[in-house]
Amino acid sequence: MKILVLNCGSSSLKYQVFNMDGETVLANGKVERIGMEDAILTHEPTGKQKVKKVSEIYEHKTAIKSVLETLIDKSDGVLADYSEIQAVGHRVVHGGESFSDSVLITPEVEDAIRKCIDLAPLHNPANLLGIDAVKEVMPTTPQVAVFDTAFHQTMDKKTFLYPIPMEQYKKYKIRRYGFHGTSHKYVAEKALDVLNLSANGSKIVSCHIGNGGSVTAIKDGKSVDTSMGMTPLEGLMMGTRSGDIDPAAVLYIMNKEELTLQEINSMLNKHSGLIGISGISSDMREIEDGLLANNESATLAFNMYEYRIRKYIGAYAAAMNGLDVLIFTAGVGENSPILRKQICDNLSYLGVELDNEKNDVFAKHDRVISSENSRVKVLVIPTNEELMIARDTQNIIGNQT
Amino acid sequence: MKILVLNCGSSSLKYQVFNMDGETVLANGKVERIGMEDAILTHEPTGKQKVKKVSEIYEHKTAIKSVLETLIDKSDGVLADYSEIQAVGHRVVHGGESFSDSVLITPEVEDAIRKCIDLAPLHNPANLLGIDAVKEVMPTTPQVAVFDTAFHQTMDKKTFLYPIPMEQYKKYKIRRYGFHGTSHKYVAEKALDVLNLSANGSKIVSCHIGNGGSVTAIKDGKSVDTSMGMTPLEGLMMGTRSGDIDPAAVLYIMNKEELTLQEINSMLNKHSGLIGISGISSDMREIEDGLLANNESATLAFNMYEYRIRKYIGAYAAAMNGLDVLIFTAGVGENSPILRKQICDNLSYLGVELDNEKNDVFAKHDRVISSENSRVKVLVIPTNEELMIARDTQNIIGNQT
Repeated sequence: MKILVLNCGSSSLKYQVFNMDGETVLANGKVERIGMEDAILTHEPTGKQKVKKVSEIYEHKTAIKSVLETLIDKSDGVLADYSEIQAVGHRVVHGGESFSDSVLITPEVEDAIRKCIDLAPLHNPANLLGIDAVKEVMPTTPQVAVFDTAFHQTMDKKTFLYPIPMEQYKKYKIRRYGFHGTSHKYVAEKALDVLNLSANGSKIVSCHIGNGGSVTAIKDGKSVDTSMGMTPLEGLMMGTRSGDIDPAAVLYIMNKEELTLQEINSMLNKHSGLIGISGISSDMREIEDGLLANNESATLAFNMYEYRIRKYIGAYAAAMNGLDVLIFTAGVGENSPILRKQICDNLSYLGVELDNEKNDVFAKHDRVISSENSRVKVLVIPTNEELMIARDTQNIIGNQT
Repeated sequence: MKILVLNCGSSSLKYQVFNMDGETVLANGKVERIGMEDAILTHEPTGKQKVKKVSEIYEHKTAIKSVLETLIDKSDGVLADYSEIQAVGHRVVHGGESFSDSVLITPEVEDAIRKCIDLAPLHNPANLLGIDAVKEVMPTTPQVAVFDTAFHQTMDKKTFLYPIPMEQYKKYKIRRYGFHGTSHKYVAEKALDVLNLSANGSKIVSCHIGNGGSVTAIKDGKSVDTSMGMTPLEGLMMGTRSGDIDPAAVLYIMNKEELTLQEINSMLNKHSGLIGISGISSDMREIEDGLLANNESATLAFNMYEYRIRKYIGAYAAAMNGLDVLIFTAGVGENSPILRKQICDNLSYLGVELDNEKNDVFAKHDRVISSENSRVKVLVIPTNEELMIARDTQNIIGNQT
């Protein structure tokens, strides 16, 4: 079965084509600057040369048509005909309380995704555009929605509610949802697999540390708590997001600077985090360069970033009364031995002991980086949300036919 | 040396008179409804009958005069003349970055306290009113300010800064200050004393759980992190305060409900926490009654409250790479065995083991409630901020003369 995986943003989309027999990637790529006359399609067919095309792409439908044409192109293509694509899997950011698992897209599902727009005003509309575009271009191909929030729907009420007047939850569904669910689920399953452990009885903390970042507590294979909240702003310090902050400090700034809701949201989401503290970059690679060069503000940003991840790991060990497995994933988690080392060296009280040599290896595969004697197993698991989406899509389509 | 300790609020004040030879309390009391024609002075001379007086008290000066007159009253008094009071110690809420210790009050100190009004608009003006009133009534008596924030000034930059644009700190001193410092310092010192441990090398978490609540990480006797932030809103779920929440959720509510800054501040500070979730009460005693009666919303509120304290304990164990001593203090911390049990039973991974019999004792004295074999020592230490203020006052006056 061949599956197209789509991750649609407001002005971009990413795609991957899987052959599920063997779970191989046939091609991946992206379209950027949708809506512009010089939109860019970058296409990487596995084993062939990367291709870049610049053209007018004013809407998602056109973008998807361009992708499909490229996929069947004589020289750069990977399919004979796009009817070979038996299903399309979409990453959908916010499923609210409606979806605790992936689902075949029907008009009812589209309505439910539409109802969550208010909770993810930047993402869900783009996801719907992608679904509509596929429906127009490939009207008979089944589509599946895989939600970033679904894995966290196992959190209990004491965890997902905020301590504010209960009517706010009843009226607006204000609560913790959590994100990166597909990634946390994927790396947790992988880690159990690598360690040959059963999900039952396991206590895992997974750290998805990319430009956005979240930490999840996973007990018996289920998400029991996660650092992102109603929105992806809560939790860790990120590339450009503040994460946790005294809510009264936010209101204080609004008052002092006479900011609108949009302006303060923009400050906290786009000008905070690593870039806000360092003034140098939102990219951890540049912050690390600064750290190694003894740059003061880069060092401060790095230490704040590390400290806030570490405190979440500690909090979730307390949430589960223990910790067996600690996972690092995503851009920074997979590629920053220096960050992993600073975190783990300060968690020896939990029985975390890093193997420094293993930690220093850069590699694109699953690996244990703790020492033989480490009570807590520490792993680097490269995340693969696209594969997870393809698998869910395959499962759901398989169950339909 | 006899010392008057004052804790002035906007419409009330509390006082205690200490004889520092033996650190005994001669009297304590309060004036409520300052500004009203039916203000109430409640006076409790040690070993004598409690007295209540209702009278017109329109300002703090009059309130303090009434207190002093009561203190030298023939039948209810405890002093021959109020010149016996050799110094007055004030609780001052916010010392900003100016004060890392208690200090003799001079015009410069008053100016510095005034400069912090912006950070504690409800408290610092009342504290200044109290200082002014004493100056008028007892112009030659030295006064000392003891700050709620001072103990936490040992936090390092990576801990006290928020991950927002650095200019916000530079312009407005937006950062974590922390509160309840006098209490955290007092119980930590007491616990080390009880355990006969040196501060050096010790890793303590103290939980000050009253109507307001905060958790502090204390390493080598110094505060290294604390859950309250720039304001007392951040951190734990409290009686009426939300504590931690996705900042974007706050902005979302403001938008949906069209709230002003004052209105959202009021929701988060006065209508959230235990009362917001339970709808029953902000008082943990009533929540516990509900819990025991299997009331669903009381049980939920209790569990959220407990869970959020526990996560901070875990986070601070990670902050210090370990935990030796766990302290409970203040109204709820001292008087809720059921809360302490639920917290400690879920911290066995840290080596916490409660002695259930000892935990169940209600008593007004310092005590260890962990089992003999518990790696982490757990203590209940009744807090005594007034005594701490009196001691600091005595020390500073002693150094002056």
